[in-house]
Amino acid sequence: MNEIKIFSPATVANVSCGYDVLGFCLDTIGDEMVVRKTKEKGVKITKIVGATLPFETNKNVAGVAALAILEAAKAEFGVEIEIYKNIKPGSGVGSSSASASGTVFAINELLGKPFDKQQLTLFGMKGEAIASGVEHADNVAPGIFGGFTLVKSIQPLKIVELPTPSELYATIIHPQIEIKTSEARGILPYKIELSNAIKQWANVGSLISGLYTSNYELIADSLHDHIIEPYRSQLIPYFKEVHDVVLENGALGCGISGSGPSIFSLCKGNTIAHKVADAMHDVYSKTGIKFDVYVSKINTEGVKIID
Amino acid sequence: MNEIKIFSPATVANVSCGYDVLGFCLDTIGDEMVVRKTKEKGVKITKIVGATLPFETNKNVAGVAALAILEAAKAEFGVEIEIYKNIKPGSGVGSSSASASGTVFAINELLGKPFDKQQLTLFGMKGEAIASGVEHADNVAPGIFGGFTLVKSIQPLKIVELPTPSELYATIIHPQIEIKTSEARGILPYKIELSNAIKQWANVGSLISGLYTSNYELIADSLHDHIIEPYRSQLIPYFKEVHDVVLENGALGCGISGSGPSIFSLCKGNTIAHKVADAMHDVYSKTGIKFDVYVSKINTEGVKIID
Repeated sequence: MNEIKIFSPATVANVSCGYDVLGFCLDTIGDEMVVRKTKEKGVKITKIVGATLPFETNKNVAGVAALAILEAAKAEFGVEIEIYKNIKPGSGVGSSSASASGTVFAINELLGKPFDKQQLTLFGMKGEAIASGVEHADNVAPGIFGGFTLVKSIQPLKIVELPTPSELYATIIHPQIEIKTSEARGILPYKIELSNAIKQWANVGSLISGLYTSNYELIADSLHDHIIEPYRSQLIPYFKEVHDVVLENGALGCGISGSGPSIFSLCKGNTIAHKVADAMHDVYSKTGIKFDVYVSKINTEGVKIID
Repeated sequence: MNEIKIFSPATVANVSCGYDVLGFCLDTIGDEMVVRKTKEKGVKITKIVGATLPFETNKNVAGVAALAILEAAKAEFGVEIEIYKNIKPGSGVGSSSASASGTVFAINELLGKPFDKQQLTLFGMKGEAIASGVEHADNVAPGIFGGFTLVKSIQPLKIVELPTPSELYATIIHPQIEIKTSEARGILPYKIELSNAIKQWANVGSLISGLYTSNYELIADSLHDHIIEPYRSQLIPYFKEVHDVVLENGALGCGISGSGPSIFSLCKGNTIAHKVADAMHDVYSKTGIKFDVYVSKINTEGVKIID
């Protein structure tokens, strides 16, 4: 195989109660990438469509991720990468992570699959670090593994794959405002109340139990964030309006996707997910802020080959 | 049925990472109780063997729990209760909770089982509150449900039953020292670092995933407490020595049982559990402190009828 075309999906990190550890993978929104072997070693970004991103390998998430995996494999070839961005940078649904995950998945295929998903996540994180300043895996892992993932630890990296109930859908609204990751991080407290932390880990526990048992009621009851959302939701206009109307329309839960500004909801079934999408649409169409709304089944496959 | 004899097991609350929410049920250590219908309404504690506890109904955990369930059922009868304590009060393995759980289970049987386990937990908590000052369920729930339980919330009470891997054993050492619950609570900080809380909820998540998948390695990797143990372990002499030697002998993990002074470990299989018991024994036999050591399979049944 000398060339591969892949679809690299958007992902939702944190998932209300699971700040910094939980994430899940979307289906209907994602980037496409073409990765081509070259005789000359090294990595060239040859095309970027849909976003303004650096072509210099060392400054590009895909470039850095590609170098990491090629070096680890001691590859005898180089690659050219074409990136077709559909996920807007800064949207909060893992745009940079999709570039990283897609790249390492594609190159692993070109190499004959020497690496497992855990290792691919590690290479992807190298790329992700260029965008966010720190190596984190809460978007890369669900992109590579698909479904729901738990990042148990970063050093050493340990990813736990979680099951996905079959009727679970996500609805996402992306308000086109900019939230700097540094601001979203800076707004968080260094210390939190023990009593709130207890609520949070009870919810993480019951959410995961709900995923294993396809208990949608328990999932709904667990999708609360007592720690992060009170701070970060201030950065997202109309968050409370969206949150409330989404629950009124039957969503299981609603929260900030990653560090925002996108807002996600989880729903049981496609019908409710679309009803929730309409409700999100109604709130934002009155605001003058540009936005996109997506409905997606939870994607249990992760990055995949297309064409 | 006019009289019932039951076994009410000891329980381990917190389970390292799951402070205030997780608990599991033991098998080889527990109280016995006889509960007998009386024509006269009300509750009489007629016998207490093995511990010095109040006979006044309103001051006795079993008495208060009995009144709660009889009142809720609008029972046309009263009860006499005989308590045979094998679980030492103040040991940290749910002594008061066993009295409460056993009582409400027994009376529910005498009533013809009108209440489910969740409701029984609520009545048991009323009794537990007499002993600890607050209504909590992290010992009552595993006693009534058996196996592992997650107390998702107290108000309203929501208990999540978790699965128990078949080869899971616990080893417990009870050093016969007194730790006041007020001291064990008072030593805890009001606020904790967000970074530590993240580690804790990652561990709660992966422990629960490990229980669902019988992944003993993941269970072992999750049994860490970054929040409570650093404080409370100071109240338990030789905690670190026990902790270290237990892990050297193959235990999956080791932590404080409830608010102590008992120390629990979880092990894969009976053989390792007994090796761990010997190791605990060796540490404490050099200290001059009286102690007991127990090995128990995780009890998936909870309170049960005997004879």
